[in-house]
This record gives sequence, C-alpha cells and structure tokens, in this order.
Amino acid sequence: MSIATADPFAWIDAAAEQRRSAGLVRTLRPRPAVGDVLDLASNDYLGLTHDPRVTRAAADAALRWGGGATGSRLVTGTTELHAELEQELADFCGVEAALVFSSGYTANLAALTALTGPGALIVSDALNHASLIDGCRLSRARVARAAHRDPDAFRAELATRSEERAIAVSDSVFSVDGDAAPLAALAAACRDHGAALVVDDAHGLGVLGPGGAGATAAAGLAGAPDVVTTVTLSKSLASQGGAVLGPRRVIEHLVQAARTFIFDTGLAPAAAGAALGALRALRAEPSRAERAREVAHALSTGLLERGLAASVPDAAVVGVRAPSPEAALAWATELRARGLGVGCFRPPSVPDRFSRLRLTARADLTDEQIAWAVDLIAETARR
Amino acid sequence: MSIATADPFAWIDAAAEQRRSAGLVRTLRPRPAVGDVLDLASNDYLGLTHDPRVTRAAADAALRWGGGATGSRLVTGTTELHAELEQELADFCGVEAALVFSSGYTANLAALTALTGPGALIVSDALNHASLIDGCRLSRARVARAAHRDPDAFRAELATRSEERAIAVSDSVFSVDGDAAPLAALAAACRDHGAALVVDDAHGLGVLGPGGAGATAAAGLAGAPDVVTTVTLSKSLASQGGAVLGPRRVIEHLVQAARTFIFDTGLAPAAAGAALGALRALRAEPSRAERAREVAHALSTGLLERGLAASVPDAAVVGVRAPSPEAALAWATELRARGLGVGCFRPPSVPDRFSRLRLTARADLTDEQIAWAVDLIAETARR
Ligand SMILES: Cc1ncc(COP(=O)(O)O)c(C=O)c1O
Ligand SMILES: Cc1ncc(COP(=O)(O)O)c(C=O)c1O
Repeated sequence: MSIATADPFAWIDAAAEQRRSAGLVRTLRPRPAVGDVLDLASNDYLGLTHDPRVTRAAADAALRWGGGATGSRLVTGTTELHAELEQELADFCGVEAALVFSSGYTANLAALTALTGPGALIVSDALNHASLIDGCRLSRARVARAAHRDPDAFRAELATRSEERAIAVSDSVFSVDGDAAPLAALAAACRDHGAALVVDDAHGLGVLGPGGAGATAAAGLAGAPDVVTTVTLSKSLASQGGAVLGPRRVIEHLVQAARTFIFDTGLAPAAAGAALGALRALRAEPSRAERAREVAHALSTGLLERGLAASVPDAAVVGVRAPSPEAALAWATELRARGLGVGCFRPPSVPDRFSRLRLTARADLTDEQIAWAVDLIAETARR
Repeated sequence: MSIATADPFAWIDAAAEQRRSAGLVRTLRPRPAVGDVLDLASNDYLGLTHDPRVTRAAADAALRWGGGATGSRLVTGTTELHAELEQELADFCGVEAALVFSSGYTANLAALTALTGPGALIVSDALNHASLIDGCRLSRARVARAAHRDPDAFRAELATRSEERAIAVSDSVFSVDGDAAPLAALAAACRDHGAALVVDDAHGLGVLGPGGAGATAAAGLAGAPDVVTTVTLSKSLASQGGAVLGPRRVIEHLVQAARTFIFDTGLAPAAAGAALGALRALRAEPSRAERAREVAHALSTGLLERGLAASVPDAAVVGVRAPSPEAALAWATELRARGLGVGCFRPPSVPDRFSRLRLTARADLTDEQIAWAVDLIAETARR
C-alpha cells in the first residue's frame, strides 16, 4: 500500500463532495444581537436569555470574579459563586448535592464514565443524546441499546446481564421530537435489578415538574438514593454549563474521579452568575414553566389541525417531520425569509433518519405570535 | 452471581475508603473573589483575568448578547461575536480559519474524532493531556502511544503502520511539568509519512511565539496545510472555551462532522467577549508573553539554586517534584497558610506517577513577589 500521500487531508474534499451531493451541507449563519425573526429555534424555553436579572448577574459576576475561573475546579477554579450555584441547584431540584461543569456535554461524559467502567453495564435508550452516547463509548463499560422509551427492553437487558454493576440512562425529554421517557417505570426496572438510573434532564429542567424542578421531580424521583440527574445550564437557565445532581456520595465521587471535571477549567464566573440569575427568576415566577408547556401544546395542536406531522409535546419541543432533507431545509429557509426562525434537523443530527423542523416553545411568546407562526408554517409546507 | 444488591452505589464507599487510606482525597475549596494568597496556581499566564479590558468586555457581551448562546452553533448559537472572535484568533495565530468551542476539552475531542476514525491511526505522546487521551478513545482509530517528546518514536509508529490515514498528536507544552514538545521534528516526521500533525497549544498560546502567537507559530508551522492546532480560551485568554485552528477545509469539516460542535450549545457570549478582550490586550502589549516566560525562568532558577527538583520551563509552568503525595499536599497546605497558592498534583492528575507542586508564572508578578515565593517554597520543603 502506498501510504505517504503528499496531502494528509485530501480525504476531506471527498467527504465534502459527498455531503454536497446528498444535500447535507451545514452552514454557520452569524446572527445579530437583536434578531429580526421570531425565534422558535433556540432552547431559551423560559425566555430568560435577555432578561436583565440574567444578563446583569452575568455582567456583575464577570466584573467581580474575573473573565474566567483560571483553573481546574480542584486547583483555583472553584469560587464561592460556584458553591452558591451548586447549593441553589441542589435545593431547587430536591437533591442532596450538585456539581457544576463547563457544559452539559462534559457533565454527561463525567456521569457515565465515573459511575461505570470496564466490567459494568450501561443500558442506553436507542435515541439518547450524542453526549450520552459519547459517554457510553468513553466509559469502556459494556453498552446495551434498549428500544426507545421501552421499560421492558431496559428490564430485559438488566435482568440478563452478567455484570454486577449496571446503570440505565435516558434523556428525560428527547431533544429532537420532545417526547418524554417513562422515568418512573425505568426507575422501577432499575430497582428490581440492583441498577442505578441516570437521567439527562437537559430539556426537562425549568419546564417539567413543580415550578420547573425538572422531570426527575415530576416523576417523584428527586432525592432518590439510586437516581442521578444531569442538567444543562444552557437552555432554561439561559447560560452555559452543566451539572450533575444526586446523592452526596455520588457527587463526591465525581469530584475525585470524573476526568471532565478534574482536567477541565471551571465554568466561567459570568456563566455561573447568569444561571443563578435565571434560577432565581424562575423561583420568583414559577408559572413560566407551565407557560412554556402551554405554548408548545398550542403550536403542536395548531399544526396537527392543519395536517402537519407534528409531535405531541411532553415538554417544550415540537418536531415537525418533513418528507426529505431538502424539503426540511427549503421550509426552514422560506420561514426565515418570512420572519420565523425554526430549527432544521437532518442526518446526522437526528437520532432516527427523518429530517424535520424543530420548534421550541418559549414562555414569553404571546397567543398572537403562536397563531401567526402556525399559519406561516402550514402555508409554507403546503407549497 | 447475586446481582440485585439493594444499593447500586455501595461500591462508591469502598472506593472512597481506598482513596482515604492512600492519601489521595481531593477537596473543593471555594475561594473568594479577591484572594488572600499570592496566586502561583492558576493558568492566568498573562495576568488578564481581572483586567478591565477583559471583564468589561465580558460584561458588555452579556448585556448585549444575552446570558447564553441559546442553542447549537448550527442552529441559533452563532452570533456575530463568535464570528469576530474566530476571525481574530485565526489572524493572530496565522492560520486560515478558527472554530470556537465551549471548552478546550471539547475542542480536543472534536479535532481527534472528526479527523480520524476507524481505519485511521493516531500516534499520541505518552504524557498527553486527558482530553487528548479521551479524544483518542472516542475516535475509534487505532491509537499508538509514542515515548514522551520522542520524534523517532512517532516516526517509527507512522512508518510501520498499515493504515492510510494517520495523525500525530501532542501537547505543545505539557501541562504538569511545562516541558515543550519538539514540534518541528514531529511535523517533519509526519510529512515524511503522509500524516497530519495535531498540536494542543493550551499552554503555548499567549506565552510562546512572536507576541504570544503560540507554539505552532514559534515552530514555524503556522498556516501549514497539514497542521491543526487546538487552543483553550481559559488560560492566557482569561476566559472559558476552546478553539481549533487550521486550514479552512479542516475547519469546515469540523462544522459538518464534529459531535462536540454539532451537539453542544455555543460558547456563552460573555466568554467570547472576555477572550476577545484578552486577545486585544495581548496584541496591544505583546511583551506580556515574554514576561510570563521570564517569570517562569526566575522561579525555576531560584528553586534549583536552593536544591529543589524544579523543572526547567519551556513556557510558563514549573513543576516541583515532591517525595510523596503526602509531602506534596503538606507543602501546598503549609504554603497556602503562609500566603502562597500553588497547585498540588497527585495521582491520578499526573501523567507519570510523581506527585509535585505545579507553579505557574504570571506576566504581572514582580521580581519581589518571585523572590519571596522562592524563599517560602524552599523553606517549606526543607522542613
Ligand atoms: C439532551 C441533551 N443533553 C445534553 C446536551 C448538552 O448540553 P450543553 O449544550 O450544555 O453542552 C444537550 C444539548 O446541547 C441535549 O439536548
Ligand atoms: C493541555 C491541555 N489541553 C486541554 C485542556 C482543556 O482546556 P479547557 O480547560 O479549556 O477545557 C487543558 C486544561 O484544562 C490542558 O491543560
């Protein structure tokens, strides 16, 4: 075999050409600070991203604590602000302890790698988020995929295992279609088989549960000794970062063992401040959680009535299937041109093979905005 | 085998007990905004973390752009601020293009996974950073460890491979001891064997090269078509986040293929703003880079003269070996009590098995502070 080609990246051009002919090229589109479209694409479920309680808290934190955390959380990267955020997150979600990470992605990697390992089993929902899949791969545990949202499938994998240690892991709300996992049934399956449950509540925190305390709380599992929840600070909490929530000994173990905690710079003070500001805004106005769900229902109902293949939302996300990747992109482009921003998800960003629009509800949308958006989407898809 | 134990986390207590008896328990110590110790522990090499050009830029970005990026970079998470940061980073480092990530950790995962894969080879320095090791594991490429800083070892692995595609990867400056990789020799080995070179310049950016343009620039490799550099925004640039720098087609490929780009929320505006502020401060005062190196040399020389096992720094990090993990911890504790903050690295946070203090230089330290720190460390280690 002739190995030494002059150009070690020649293969990239071939891959690019393939993507072009498949109509799957993605483009970065830098947006202005104040958008000129109605946003149904972000994950700003509570509408807090530009709330002064959030932006002022971010600004104050940067001015007081500096631009960055300056080091690993274990060296110089833990400020009193991080500790405050962890305490308030734990209290809000009804768990013993919380540990904050630089992203939801690294929080998921941490939970899966530090709580399993070679000789353990992870049973993972077939449509779990990419960060959970990467966590499974990194863990070196045996990984069994269970059918989507099927507690019996989880149960069967747990029952027939030879490993002593096992965890089951699932998104609480699946990010693309917004459908919810049967968390109580998953927890029961885990308990019957001596396994722990890890819930990724990225899309549940702030939307589900009492006052937005999340899907784990909604399922009656908050504070359970065998349940660990991961969250992101980048969606309802209008910031950046992630956290793992659970029993104190689990959190303490992550401090000692999780590589994406130990070998990563702490979350920037501004992000910690923004998340705290958003958490406090939600506590002051708990009805924002319910309003986000209400808005999602109105979007879904309106689109279904107009004959579109919309999902029925369990939280604040609505998926709308398109006949092809090209159609999805054409719809999204047309909608943007007419003033509506929607997500456009195509392979490989969809866990199944269906391209779709992804609409997100925001607590601050008005009924008029919803009606206008529904009409516009229906009209666009009809053409 | 009896699988169903009542407590799926019982093993954590055993692991904790083991760590306690090995003297390897880590403790989070929340710090105040204004420290009461002289900091030789952070990675704030240029001393910009509290610089108003950085903190004001972070605050302004939060106020203008909001608390978070609100979505994946491919959906709503790319602002004009991100594009500006990417352009200025690329210009500063002398490369075609840059792509910003939520952390240096996820930037490394992206580069290694998207540029290799099953059927490719990665040759990785034996003491590479944890994030590079995780990137290797996630990539599903074959991974060959090469002896530390040994171009011949890299060359041998590249020459005897059966895979067509290969990359070599190395820290530019190793994070614990501060020693530098032989980048020019590594690049030559790669070229002779049709491989690409990936350089993690986390500890070189802002410190090495003309005006702090980094180790790749210092080695004459900036802008090379077969070299990719990853950096973090969390050290010299006094913020949070990471970036991949290189040929435009490589960066474009990451946009299309890197899971930690596609499935992660964009960097928070405040962090992008802080990094831009730091970059501009460095451009205005390029001597900061040289001063950081000078300070590191003064620390190392002083400690060596007093008989301590200090490393000779190639950048701004100085390692000081301790006889045991207990001694390292005792020294660090004593130093902190006497007003000096130093890093204390013990297994598993050291790539080899040696516990040590880790000292970092900052461009804003005075000669008096350096002399005081050297005396204090020597005195503490002597007892
Ligand atoms: C289900 C799920 N988990 C984890 C993440 C990662 O969180 P973050 O973007 O904060 O890294 C996301 C989205 O980004 C998500 O949708
Ligand atoms: C060599 C090296 N690479 C990558 C990283 C990760 O960067 P970040 O902390 O920004 O995630 C670090 C330190 O944290 C590092 O020391």
